[in-house]
Amino acid sequence: MMHRTPLFSAIVLAIAAPSVAASAQPAPVAATAQAKFPPLYRAELERARSFVSEMMAAGVVVPVPKDPGGGYTHEQHKRNYKAIYLAGQLYRITGEQAYADYVRDMLLAYAELYPTLGDHPARHNQNPGRLFWQVLNDAVWLVYSVQGYGEIRDTLSAADRERIDDQLFRRAAKFLSVDSRATFDRIHNHATWATAGVGMTGYLLGDEDMIERALLGSDKSGASGFLRQTELLFSPDGYYAEGPYYQRYALLPFMVFADAIERNDPERRIFEHRDGILLKALYTTVQLTYGGYFFPFNDALKDKSLRTDELYHGVAIAYERTRDPALLSIAEFQGRTVLSEGGLLAARDLAAGKAKPFPFRSLLLRDGPEGDRGAVAILRQGSGPEHTVLVAKNTSQGMGHGHFDKLSWQFYDNGNEIVRDYGAARFLNIEAKRGGRYLPENESWAKQTIAHNTVAVDMRSHFDGDDELGETIAPQQLYFSDVPGLQVSSARVENVQPGVALQRTLVMADIPGMEEPTVLDLMRAESDASHTYDLPLHYQGHVMELAFPVESHVGARPVLGEDNGYQHIWVDAVAQPEAGDAAMTWLLDDRFYTYRFVTDGAVQAILGESGANDPDFNLRREPMVILRARGKRDHTFVSLLESHGRYDGAAEQTVASRSRVRAMRHDRIDGADVVRLTLADGSRVAIAISHDPNTSASHRVTLDGETLEWTGFAAVIELEAQGA
Amino acid sequence: MMHRTPLFSAIVLAIAAPSVAASAQPAPVAATAQAKFPPLYRAELERARSFVSEMMAAGVVVPVPKDPGGGYTHEQHKRNYKAIYLAGQLYRITGEQAYADYVRDMLLAYAELYPTLGDHPARHNQNPGRLFWQVLNDAVWLVYSVQGYGEIRDTLSAADRERIDDQLFRRAAKFLSVDSRATFDRIHNHATWATAGVGMTGYLLGDEDMIERALLGSDKSGASGFLRQTELLFSPDGYYAEGPYYQRYALLPFMVFADAIERNDPERRIFEHRDGILLKALYTTVQLTYGGYFFPFNDALKDKSLRTDELYHGVAIAYERTRDPALLSIAEFQGRTVLSEGGLLAARDLAAGKAKPFPFRSLLLRDGPEGDRGAVAILRQGSGPEHTVLVAKNTSQGMGHGHFDKLSWQFYDNGNEIVRDYGAARFLNIEAKRGGRYLPENESWAKQTIAHNTVAVDMRSHFDGDDELGETIAPQQLYFSDVPGLQVSSARVENVQPGVALQRTLVMADIPGMEEPTVLDLMRAESDASHTYDLPLHYQGHVMELAFPVESHVGARPVLGEDNGYQHIWVDAVAQPEAGDAAMTWLLDDRFYTYRFVTDGAVQAILGESGANDPDFNLRREPMVILRARGKRDHTFVSLLESHGRYDGAAEQTVASRSRVRAMRHDRIDGADVVRLTLADGSRVAIAISHDPNTSASHRVTLDGETLEWTGFAAVIELEAQGA
Repeated sequence: MMHRTPLFSAIVLAIAAPSVAASAQPAPVAATAQAKFPPLYRAELERARSFVSEMMAAGVVVPVPKDPGGGYTHEQHKRNYKAIYLAGQLYRITGEQAYADYVRDMLLAYAELYPTLGDHPARHNQNPGRLFWQVLNDAVWLVYSVQGYGEIRDTLSAADRERIDDQLFRRAAKFLSVDSRATFDRIHNHATWATAGVGMTGYLLGDEDMIERALLGSDKSGASGFLRQTELLFSPDGYYAEGPYYQRYALLPFMVFADAIERNDPERRIFEHRDGILLKALYTTVQLTYGGYFFPFNDALKDKSLRTDELYHGVAIAYERTRDPALLSIAEFQGRTVLSEGGLLAARDLAAGKAKPFPFRSLLLRDGPEGDRGAVAILRQGSGPEHTVLVAKNTSQGMGHGHFDKLSWQFYDNGNEIVRDYGAARFLNIEAKRGGRYLPENESWAKQTIAHNTVAVDMRSHFDGDDELGETIAPQQLYFSDVPGLQVSSARVENVQPGVALQRTLVMADIPGMEEPTVLDLMRAESDASHTYDLPLHYQGHVMELAFPVESHVGARPVLGEDNGYQHIWVDAVAQPEAGDAAMTWLLDDRFYTYRFVTDGAVQAILGESGANDPDFNLRREPMVILRARGKRDHTFVSLLESHGRYDGAAEQTVASRSRVRAMRHDRIDGADVVRLTLADGSRVAIAISHDPNTSASHRVTLDGETLEWTGFAAVIELEAQGA
Repeated sequence: MMHRTPLFSAIVLAIAAPSVAASAQPAPVAATAQAKFPPLYRAELERARSFVSEMMAAGVVVPVPKDPGGGYTHEQHKRNYKAIYLAGQLYRITGEQAYADYVRDMLLAYAELYPTLGDHPARHNQNPGRLFWQVLNDAVWLVYSVQGYGEIRDTLSAADRERIDDQLFRRAAKFLSVDSRATFDRIHNHATWATAGVGMTGYLLGDEDMIERALLGSDKSGASGFLRQTELLFSPDGYYAEGPYYQRYALLPFMVFADAIERNDPERRIFEHRDGILLKALYTTVQLTYGGYFFPFNDALKDKSLRTDELYHGVAIAYERTRDPALLSIAEFQGRTVLSEGGLLAARDLAAGKAKPFPFRSLLLRDGPEGDRGAVAILRQGSGPEHTVLVAKNTSQGMGHGHFDKLSWQFYDNGNEIVRDYGAARFLNIEAKRGGRYLPENESWAKQTIAHNTVAVDMRSHFDGDDELGETIAPQQLYFSDVPGLQVSSARVENVQPGVALQRTLVMADIPGMEEPTVLDLMRAESDASHTYDLPLHYQGHVMELAFPVESHVGARPVLGEDNGYQHIWVDAVAQPEAGDAAMTWLLDDRFYTYRFVTDGAVQAILGESGANDPDFNLRREPMVILRARGKRDHTFVSLLESHGRYDGAAEQTVASRSRVRAMRHDRIDGADVVRLTLADGSRVAIAISHDPNTSASHRVTLDGETLEWTGFAAVIELEAQGA
C-alpha cells in the first residue's frame, strides 16, 4: 500500500512495484474495466464505494474528541479513518479525483484539529490518546489513515502536503512514539499498532528516524520496537500468548507493517525474519479454528471467526507473498477480501479456480518466545465441517486476558463444540451490558478455574486467581503424537496451588468395536497434603440418561459455593455412584455423547448449570458435571468421552443411542496407567499409557493374570473377549 | 401406484395411465437409461437400491411378533414393509426379476405367519394389532405392503398369488375392517390408515366389498369410512384439528389412497371431492410452516419439517394432479421425492428449472368440519428465510393431543422462533427417554396453559386440564385482516375457567419511526368474579436489559407453584414496576427484541425458566416472563413486541440495541382500545382498535384533549410530536 508514495524519497525509489496499479499516476478505470475485476474484488469495491459515498455525502465531520468507546466522537473518528483508508484505495483504483479531494479535505480538517488536542477528556487509564480515550485507538487511526494518505499525497499542492505532513502525521507519530513512549516500547500488541503507524508514516514521509524508532524501539537499540515484537510476541510456532482471539487482533498491524517494510525496504527480508515468523503466525491463526471460529481461549468472544477484517488483510498479504492456493479457500470461506493488490490477486486466482483446501491438521504449537512455556496441542481426525478436534490448552497464563485454566481441554465434533470453553463474559458494543466492556462476571466466572475443563483445588482457582503469579508458572508439554488413530497430548504443571501439580494425558483413539474417535482423559492431581479436587466437564447437549442414581434438587435449587466462580453454579443434582464406573449420555443435534468415569465409590458427581448469582442475566446458562474427589493427596480422574449413534427426528430413526461400553476399569501399575474397557458385545480392549516418551521402548504389565505388552507412550490393545 | 395391477379386474381396465412406466409388463431400464433420470429421482433410486440390497442380502426375516414399539420385531416388520414397497417400485422401474422374487418370498413368508397370529403379546391398549402392538401399525404395514405387492402380483404363479391374496392380504384386510371395526369406523387418522390399506387391497384384488367398506364405512352407509373422513377431519380450509404435526402424519394415507382411487375409479373425482379438500389440505400443511418447520401446536416434535416421508409422497401426488410449479420449490427444499410417476414428473420438471417460489402468505384457516370451531390466523410479512410470521392459535382443543392453550400465539422472525411454543415433551425413539414415548412432563408441563403464551386463570389450566370439556368449547375468530402493514387477528373464547372469557387482539403493524413489523398484543380476561391472571411470554434469547428494578433470587432458586405446570418453573426474579410501562430486551442471533407492557403499578413480572421438578432432565430449560394481575375481575394485558437493531460480533458493530419506544399508554374508551406510543425522538403514534369488524365504520375518541379518528377495526394514527 505504501509503494505508490511520491518519488522524492530515496527509500521509495527502491520499491518493487509488481502490481497492476503501479504507474506513478493513478490510471482511471472505467466502469467497463471494473466489470472485469473478479467477483470477490468487485464486491469489495462496491462495498467501499457505498461506504465512502455515504461519508462524502455527509461532508467532512471531524469533531472535537469527547466521548469514550462507543460514544459519538469515538465512532465518528473510527468512521473517518476507515473512510480515509478506503477513499485512498478507491482513488488508486479508479483515479476519480473526488476521492483524492475528500481524503485531502478530511486530513486538512484533522491537521487543523490535531495541534489543539491534549489528553482525551474521557481517558480511563494511564495511556490516554488524543483523538480517542486510549492511545491504542490513536495508533489504529494512524495505521489506517497513513495508508489512505499514501495514495493521494502526490496529488496535493506543496502547501497542503506540508500542512498535513507537519501538523497531522508528524505530530501523531511524535505523540505515539515520544509522548507515549511507555506504550511504544512495550512488548505488547498495543505497541505493535503504534510502531506500525509510526513506521509507515516514516516510509511515507521519508523519515529515517521514525522508521528506525519503529523497527528498533525509541532508543533504536532493538530491545523493543517492531522487530523485537516479532521475536517475543510469537512463539517459534507462531502462537501468540494471549490466545487466538487476540492473535487475530494483533495480526493486522504485524502483517500490514511488514507488507510496507517489504515494499519499501525489501532488503530487510522481513517475511523471512525469524524463520518466516509472520507468515507462520498467519497460518497458525487459521489452524486455531473449528468451522472457521477461533478456539475461545482466555478472554475471547465466541462469535469471532476468520470472517474478520484482520484476517481479510492477513490472507491477502500472505497470498501475495506465498501464492499458496490453500489460502484461497480461506478467502472463499471469508467471502471477503481487501482492495490491495494482494486482495486483487487472491480474488483473481480464486475466480480462476486455483483454490485448494486448507490443510487443517493435528499439530503442537509451543508457547513462549523460546517455545518452552507450554503448548497448545491440536488433535484432529477427519476433515470437513463435521470433523473431530480435541484441543489441549497447556499454555502459559497469557497475560492480563489469560484465564486460570491450566491443562484445560475442549472437544469439537459434528460441527459443534461438545466440551465447551465459556470464553469471555462480555457483549461487545452492547451499551446496556456495561457499555460493551468486560462484565464483572468475566472476573467472577469466565476467568475462574471451575469455569473450565480442568481441576480446581479446594474450590479455588489456579494461582489463587493471581495472574502475575500465573505468568511465572508455565506447563510443560511431556508428549505429543499425531499418529492417526492414536493421537496423544500429555502435559504437566506444577503448583497450581502451592504444592499441587496436575498432569493430564488425553488420548484420542480409534478403538475396535467403537464408533468415531473416543477420548480418554487421565487427569492426575498430586500433592503431599490432602485436598478436594474438582474436575468439571462443561458439555453441550440435553441429558438423555444418567446411568447412576442421583439426589435431585427438584423443588429449590441451591448454589454450589460462595466464590471463585462456585457462586455462579446452580446445583441440579448430586450423586455418589458405586465403585466401578458411571456414565451419563447427552444428545446434541443428531449425535449422542457418553461421558463415563471411573470411581472408587467416593467420587461425587455434581450436575450443575451456570447462572446463579447473576441478577443482570449476564451469563449464559450452560450445563456441567463436576467430579469431586475429597480428602485426597494424589488422585487420578479417569474418564472416557464416547460419541455415538444418530438421532433423526425427521425420519423418526434412532441408532445406537446408548453407550457401547459396559464397564471401564483403571489401574495404575509400575508408573503406567491402564484403562480396560468391556464393550456391550463382550469384547475387551485396553488403553495403556506408559508415560515414556521413548517411542521404541517396550512395556509390559500384568493385571488379573493378563499380560499386556506394548511399545511407546500409549497403545490400544485388544484383549480376550468375555461372554456378552 | 395401483395402476399397473393385473388386467383381470374391470376396475383396472378403467385406469388412465399417463406415465412413462405404464406398459403392462415392466420395461427393463438399463443403467444408461437410469442415468437419464433427473438428479432428485436418481438419488432416490440409489437410496432405494441401497436399502433393498441390504435387506435382500440379509434374507427374508419375518419374525413372530413379540416386541413393543422400538423393539426388534417391531423394527424388523417396519423395515420389511419398507422393503416390500421399495422393491416393488424398483421392479417396476428396472424390471429386474430379483426384486419381484424378493417381494414374493417376503410375502409368502408373511402368508405363512399371518394366519397363526392372534393379538400382539405386547398390546398396550384396547386396539391391539397382529404384527405390531397397536392396530395403527398394522394398517401402515398394509398401506405400504399392498403397494409393493401391486407391482409384482402379475408376475406370480397362480398358486403363489392365491396364497398371498388369501392367506395374507384378505386376512389383513379383514382384521382391520372387521375384527377391528371400532377403529376402522372412527373419524380419526388411525381409521384413515385402515381404510386406505383396506381400500387399496380391494382395488388390487378386485374386491368391491372391501372398496365400498373402505370408502363408506363398514356398514357402507357413508357415516364413516374414507370419504366421510375427508369431510370431517379437515376444516373447509384444509386444517386438521390436531394441528400441523399430526396433519403431516395423517396426510399420507389420505393422499396415497386418493391417488389409488383416482387411478382405479377416476369417475369418483376424488380430488375434486368437497371442493378439492385433499389438495387444499396439502397446501395448508405447507402453509403451516416457518423455514420448513411446522408450527409446533399441541403434541408436536419440533424437529419435524417438510422434509418428511409423508410430504415427499404428498408433494409428488399433488404435483402430478396440479402441475403447480410452486410445489417444485417445496420438492427442492425437501431434496427428496418418491419413486412414483408423480415423483419422476416432479424431479424432471424441477431439473428443467420450472420451480417457482411457494406463495407463503397471510391467511386464516378455520377449524372444525363446518369451519366454525375457531381458526388459526397466520400473519406474514416479508419473504424468504428471514421473514416475519405471527401465528395466533385460536383453534379448538384438537383431540387427545391438544394442549390447553386457547388464544395462544407464536412469533417468528429473522429465521428464529422468537415467541415459543414448547411443543411436546418427548424424545421420539430414544430408548432411555421412556422408550421414546411421551414423557410424564408432556402432561405436567407441555400441555398446561402456563407453558403457552396465553392467560392462565388462578394458576390453573384451561378447562382445568379436562380435554373432553375442552372439546365442547371452541374460540370464535372475531376479525382477521391481512392488509399489508396492518394485519390483525382478534378472537374470543368463553369459559376457559367457569365464568372467565378471554379475548385477544394481535396487531402486526408497520409503525412510523420503528423498524420492522411491531406486534401489539391486547389480551383481555373478563369475569364477574375476582381472579389471578397470569400471561406468560416464552421468549428465546439472552436478556440484555431489564428496564425495571427486580428482586432476584440469586442464591437459591425457588419454584413458582405446585401443580398445573407451575411446579416446573424456576423463579429467577420478581418485579413490580411502577405504573406506566416497563420493558425488557433480549438478543437472539443478530437481532434485538424488546417486550414492553403497560402496568397500573400492581402487575408483577416474574422472570422464570422451565426445568424445576425435573429429576430426569426431561425438559428443555427455556426462559419466560410471566405478567401477573391479582384480584382482578376484568383485566387487559397490553404489550408490544418490537424487533430492532443489529448485532455483528464479527465486525464489532452494534446498531439500535435499545428500544425505540420511550413510553406506552393504554386507554379503553367507548369500547375501543387505544395504545399511544411516544418514540425516543419524541414522535407519537397511536394504535386504535375499535373492535368493530365493519371495515367502513368510522370511529372517534378523545383522549387528553386529542381527538383520534379512524375507520374500521384497527388503525395506526400519527399524533403530534412531543419534544424529544
